[in-house]
Amino acid sequence: MSAGGAPDASAPGSVRITVDLGARSYPVVVAPDAGAALAARVAQLDCSGAVVVTDESVGALHEARATGPLADAGHPDAPVIRVPAGEASKSLDAAGRVLEAMRRAGLDRRGLVVALGGGVVGDLAGFAAAIYLRGVDVIQVPTTLLAQVDSSVGGKTAVNLPAGKNLVGAFHQPRGVFVSTEVLASLPAGEFTSAFGEIVKYGLISETGLFEGLERDPAPALARDPRALTQVIATCLRAKAAVVAADEREGGARAILNVGHTVGHALEALTGYVRYRHGDAVAIGNVYEARLSAVLGLASDDLAGRVEALERRLGLPVDPDPFDPDAALVAMRGDKKAVGGRLRFALPCAVGRSEIVDDVSPETVRRVLAAG
Amino acid sequence: MSAGGAPDASAPGSVRITVDLGARSYPVVVAPDAGAALAARVAQLDCSGAVVVTDESVGALHEARATGPLADAGHPDAPVIRVPAGEASKSLDAAGRVLEAMRRAGLDRRGLVVALGGGVVGDLAGFAAAIYLRGVDVIQVPTTLLAQVDSSVGGKTAVNLPAGKNLVGAFHQPRGVFVSTEVLASLPAGEFTSAFGEIVKYGLISETGLFEGLERDPAPALARDPRALTQVIATCLRAKAAVVAADEREGGARAILNVGHTVGHALEALTGYVRYRHGDAVAIGNVYEARLSAVLGLASDDLAGRVEALERRLGLPVDPDPFDPDAALVAMRGDKKAVGGRLRFALPCAVGRSEIVDDVSPETVRRVLAAG
Repeated sequence: MSAGGAPDASAPGSVRITVDLGARSYPVVVAPDAGAALAARVAQLDCSGAVVVTDESVGALHEARATGPLADAGHPDAPVIRVPAGEASKSLDAAGRVLEAMRRAGLDRRGLVVALGGGVVGDLAGFAAAIYLRGVDVIQVPTTLLAQVDSSVGGKTAVNLPAGKNLVGAFHQPRGVFVSTEVLASLPAGEFTSAFGEIVKYGLISETGLFEGLERDPAPALARDPRALTQVIATCLRAKAAVVAADEREGGARAILNVGHTVGHALEALTGYVRYRHGDAVAIGNVYEARLSAVLGLASDDLAGRVEALERRLGLPVDPDPFDPDAALVAMRGDKKAVGGRLRFALPCAVGRSEIVDDVSPETVRRVLAAG
Repeated sequence: MSAGGAPDASAPGSVRITVDLGARSYPVVVAPDAGAALAARVAQLDCSGAVVVTDESVGALHEARATGPLADAGHPDAPVIRVPAGEASKSLDAAGRVLEAMRRAGLDRRGLVVALGGGVVGDLAGFAAAIYLRGVDVIQVPTTLLAQVDSSVGGKTAVNLPAGKNLVGAFHQPRGVFVSTEVLASLPAGEFTSAFGEIVKYGLISETGLFEGLERDPAPALARDPRALTQVIATCLRAKAAVVAADEREGGARAILNVGHTVGHALEALTGYVRYRHGDAVAIGNVYEARLSAVLGLASDDLAGRVEALERRLGLPVDPDPFDPDAALVAMRGDKKAVGGRLRFALPCAVGRSEIVDDVSPETVRRVLAAG
């Protein structure tokens, strides 16, 4: 397992990371403007044709960030497939419409899909690419901070069923991920801030420097300085790349990425996925799970307070609306990561160190949830 | 690459083949009744739950061939998900309904899908298993001769789009394939016979003994003698297992399985997939492609006549309805295996020997098609 991360001599302020998966390794480039790197990668892939998948909101603002580099790489007329913005587009129906549009565009087995957007577009377009002609190439161009620090890397794609979120999908690694931090200037404040829930998560998993840097001075990142964000994002993606390289299909070690998520997902499920932004739910989850770690003797008592203090400074929520701990436990058991009904957590043990813990007693979890 | 094939001491008249794919290797068992072997495999997989996917026609006749072994393996209450019989069930919509039913059944990541039916059910259930929770186990229990000799082994799954057949799918190897030749007693005559188009194809690819054996005496197989069919099917699947082990995802060598199919698919496409059974189209394709081989100097002139004579004895069609050769060429270029518009064939060069040939001149193909 390795995940290099080095300044890219060809573009000032740019960081290039490799997700090391043998023949399926791919570059991740983080820069104020990663367009030139995207064009170079597309040219290198030598695809027979390309389409852009985006949503109507992102397309209106940022379409040229995909079509421009595609034109530079010899695909001046790549069709743009637009889906309605929002979670409703993460459905099998929407996937069917994207697939039909890919067919109409004449995409063949050597075709390329460029996913331009947030998590919904990345998941939907990645899934469509995974199943079109049993798999064509996809490049991720994430445009939200949440997608930039987390979901764009790692090859997880999914759509929802009426019965639940992300129940259908595929592991399908992208051929590259190109993050332009400049696009974040247009992101609504709540959406921008909530992504810090995932960023704090990476601090808890392995990135002590990231966590402590934000503790020292969160201002440049919060002010959306493209250079500061490049460093924050690259640090998260370097950590994720290393985990994915070690365990591509979540056989074991990859579960460490679920820090904050077992509680976070339960809160989202209890509230119908409309009350909390995902990153906000993770932020609350980070605090609760640090408390659970302390109760289990895995973390010192002050970890949860330190997480809470940082998250407050970042503008993240740390207290959920009142909820029923028993209902949350049921939601945890219904989580698709549940196997045979046992409770498994990825728990923060210190800043920069987390552990996967099996067979956590539901009663202990209930007590921590109830104490609030 | 290897694909063993040995009599199974535990069941008289049973043949066991291994598809050798490293950690994803799986057994293929062909027997008059493979139910006990299926039960043993399910028990070995130690799954958390199971569902059966079948169609209404097959379910009415053969459901117990799946539910019985599942009960023997400790899953007495496996839900049966029934889809309407016929090609219309090979759609994203039908996949969505199967996926919803899998969720209602409480299937988790360690769950098992047993696909009981012909090619439509195998493709649909295999695809649903491939994308449910990003992939759960599937076992194929094919009930048509066509599925038994070909599509049940190899991990190709697919559904159709309105714009074309098999445009959406996944490579998802089964955890086992269990072929009971007894079930063929109930198969309608036309469906039974047409599968010999694929069987002749395996004779042309590598199985000289199979081809010559059918030339000598096709009667036992045509009479559906379970032991004779066991040998015929096992020979085809041994050949397929070897090809799949060498090239799981159709990077190159696996294309050899397309003998008879480039012409066959074109005829099916030209006639809206309703005029010809797939195996019948392949039978016609075998003859035309042998003629094309002769014209290209790759086969002796008498190969096509020999194929034609055997196929007539087997009750297969060898002459298509009148068709437009130019339209057929267009259909060949639209085939999803086309890359950049070139024509690629897997051509029979002799009984037991075929070759992949790139860049076949469209004019030569047109001439052979026009000559009829």
